[in-house]
Amino acid sequence: MNLEQQAARTIARYDMLRPGQPVLAALSGGADSVALVCVLRALGYPVRAYHLNHCLRGEESERDADFVHSLCIKLDVPLTLEREDATAYAAQSGESVETAARKLRYARLSGCAARQGITRIATAHTADDNLETMLFHLARGTGTRGMAGIPPVRGEIVRPLWTATRAEVEAYLSGLGQDFVVDSSNLSLDYTRNRIRHTVVPALRTVNPGCTGAATRLAEQLRRDDDALCVLAERALGQGSPAEGIALAAFDQLPAIQSRMLTALLCRAGVPMQQVSERHIGLMTGLLAPGGDRCCNLPAGFRAYREQGRLRILFEPERVSVPLFDGFRGRLWDSSTILTVNTKKPGEVFHKTCDTFLADCGTIHFGTLAVRPAAPGDRLTLPGARGARQLKRLFADLSVPLSVRSRLAVIADQNGVILAQGVGIDQSRVPRGGKILEFRFEGL
Amino acid sequence: MNLEQQAARTIARYDMLRPGQPVLAALSGGADSVALVCVLRALGYPVRAYHLNHCLRGEESERDADFVHSLCIKLDVPLTLEREDATAYAAQSGESVETAARKLRYARLSGCAARQGITRIATAHTADDNLETMLFHLARGTGTRGMAGIPPVRGEIVRPLWTATRAEVEAYLSGLGQDFVVDSSNLSLDYTRNRIRHTVVPALRTVNPGCTGAATRLAEQLRRDDDALCVLAERALGQGSPAEGIALAAFDQLPAIQSRMLTALLCRAGVPMQQVSERHIGLMTGLLAPGGDRCCNLPAGFRAYREQGRLRILFEPERVSVPLFDGFRGRLWDSSTILTVNTKKPGEVFHKTCDTFLADCGTIHFGTLAVRPAAPGDRLTLPGARGARQLKRLFADLSVPLSVRSRLAVIADQNGVILAQGVGIDQSRVPRGGKILEFRFEGL
Repeated sequence: MNLEQQAARTIARYDMLRPGQPVLAALSGGADSVALVCVLRALGYPVRAYHLNHCLRGEESERDADFVHSLCIKLDVPLTLEREDATAYAAQSGESVETAARKLRYARLSGCAARQGITRIATAHTADDNLETMLFHLARGTGTRGMAGIPPVRGEIVRPLWTATRAEVEAYLSGLGQDFVVDSSNLSLDYTRNRIRHTVVPALRTVNPGCTGAATRLAEQLRRDDDALCVLAERALGQGSPAEGIALAAFDQLPAIQSRMLTALLCRAGVPMQQVSERHIGLMTGLLAPGGDRCCNLPAGFRAYREQGRLRILFEPERVSVPLFDGFRGRLWDSSTILTVNTKKPGEVFHKTCDTFLADCGTIHFGTLAVRPAAPGDRLTLPGARGARQLKRLFADLSVPLSVRSRLAVIADQNGVILAQGVGIDQSRVPRGGKILEFRFEGL
Repeated sequence: MNLEQQAARTIARYDMLRPGQPVLAALSGGADSVALVCVLRALGYPVRAYHLNHCLRGEESERDADFVHSLCIKLDVPLTLEREDATAYAAQSGESVETAARKLRYARLSGCAARQGITRIATAHTADDNLETMLFHLARGTGTRGMAGIPPVRGEIVRPLWTATRAEVEAYLSGLGQDFVVDSSNLSLDYTRNRIRHTVVPALRTVNPGCTGAATRLAEQLRRDDDALCVLAERALGQGSPAEGIALAAFDQLPAIQSRMLTALLCRAGVPMQQVSERHIGLMTGLLAPGGDRCCNLPAGFRAYREQGRLRILFEPERVSVPLFDGFRGRLWDSSTILTVNTKKPGEVFHKTCDTFLADCGTIHFGTLAVRPAAPGDRLTLPGARGARQLKRLFADLSVPLSVRSRLAVIADQNGVILAQGVGIDQSRVPRGGKILEFRFEGL
């Protein structure tokens, strides 16, 4: 089977292109991408090419752009040639030049395709690229998805050479008498990628000369497995929202599905997934067990709670301590609660709701007066109580759910807690006939 | 975390041993197995050791046995020491010496444990062994299960050092001041294993020094995935038997589950699984599609059929042609059908059922008379018909299911088909008043 037949089969198998569908090919000028353009053209697809000169290799970059330009004239393939300094872009974004160049290339490709009304972008990744990626991920640490390497299709990106080896690509070009450029940075890749391409893969090839094909078939199976388990996880989650919570009974007992349900839930909640580690999934798994923890911290200000038979994920950015003063009026953190602080004379207080607290002005240390969330160690002696109790205990007595506790305000000064929203005021601060400080919460 | 704590955690995590449960440790005398015995003993398990002298390395084998003997006296660990010539065993079984030695070792270990009433056997495989196995499988071609490498538990076999690296094992022994033997065959392994241990793994370690731990975590995830998908496949198959068939509607649409249902069905049917390849699963997948094939060959004489909305797997060993003669009486192949062949005078035939066929003796070529299954190209002219028709068409007209057709007998001589069981006799062979040959099928 020659490269064109192989690509035709891959295109059909993964539904990459309909017959005659226009496609934009990323063309660096290297063997793989030159073969890609030749193959797509031979198969009769209306192909256009895109080349981005990253200006990373001086003269060589110009030579590649010239080669690509001549090639496209020879093949009668319309070419879009752009240039952008990837080094400058990397400096701006703070990423490695390689990462920055790749992001830039995909963004530009996508923009170019959109301008031309093209909905498919072809890149020249081969089975060798895939095996290298699989090994790289294996060494760095990965899960099922990562071990499946480079996907044959991702959104508008399609990879018709996904099952072809680099040797097959070079034999094809040699058969056509078609030359290509050799990217000097490819030969020296970065150090790790280089070790994999030039040491690991050749050693595996001595174990089995067909190891690239074997790896491609494994990648297909792993992707199918992960797809199935993700579909089942989504089905089990149904329409549930992270904030309203998912019934604990809905969580599948099979760990492979349960862990994917937790991952999908984090994703739905908007937790930045690149910050989520196996450890977080482990903490959340712990929440599902009846006797285990009831709350855990997640990245970027999210927290997970087990409450009333449900697992909930809430966005709870850190609540800083806000200094208070006579005349303060402000919205507390990201909530809808407005706190007003005013001194009053005893006769001035007309109506006192459960969200209004009155304290004796003389007991307040105004220099350290502040509102903040409850903290471990907070203690309060409620009027009439025998002694101080931990705020945590008082919350529990009142059956305040964990996720609500973290939203309630505590007002304190250097002498300790003055009052806790939803609980009450400390006995030592109750008015004794003098000036009164009124704390009023509205819109809880 | 030291090696003992690490092993204790692995033992608990995979439920390898209950506290105080007796265990038989495979002890070669190498670093890993010496550490295994020391760790199990330090953790308080009643440990016994087993050493098999394979007599593969002459003096060195004797040295190892002596070392193991002294070590067990020193540690006060009861030892069973056996010897068997693995080379002779391999010559007998036709396997490689390495494979033969491994099988022999596991069989002897299992026997030794059984004699002592021990239900757990510990082997010293480390995370390094696992990474090497994963890479070996990746290169040779594997699926999800194979990519998960060496399982931490398999039946009575447990592997308490499954998460430990070889470096951790050696550091532990060095800390104890405990020596061990170096197996010269370990250093020279076989060529492929050697390349993986001494070239591939060190290169991956330059990518990530913690690659062994990363591989162990991946192995856990892949095993969990495969477990879940296999459980779902078994659930979907329910109690269905391969011979009665599984309703096509029961097959899950997710390829990862569907392919495992097909594999499990083959296993239930008794198809030798080491002969089943991805190609066979592909052929069976093709049977599930309404417009596709209706029958495919499987290894070892099995065939799969799509019939009446079900997928069936039947054992149909090759049916050889059996020569027939006047006076023949015999069971046809593996079936319950008995065929009798007798010459009769016209007046002698009393009752003729639909399973009895009468032919004119004068038309029979006895030298080539035989019974065999239907073959492509068989043709028959039924009495009263206008001309010869393909047997295949006649089966179809009579709605004979595919799986039944292959069980029906065809009797023929050098001049062609005489009769087909369930269909009829050829017009040219019907009796014309002379001697008659009677073919009688019983017990269909």
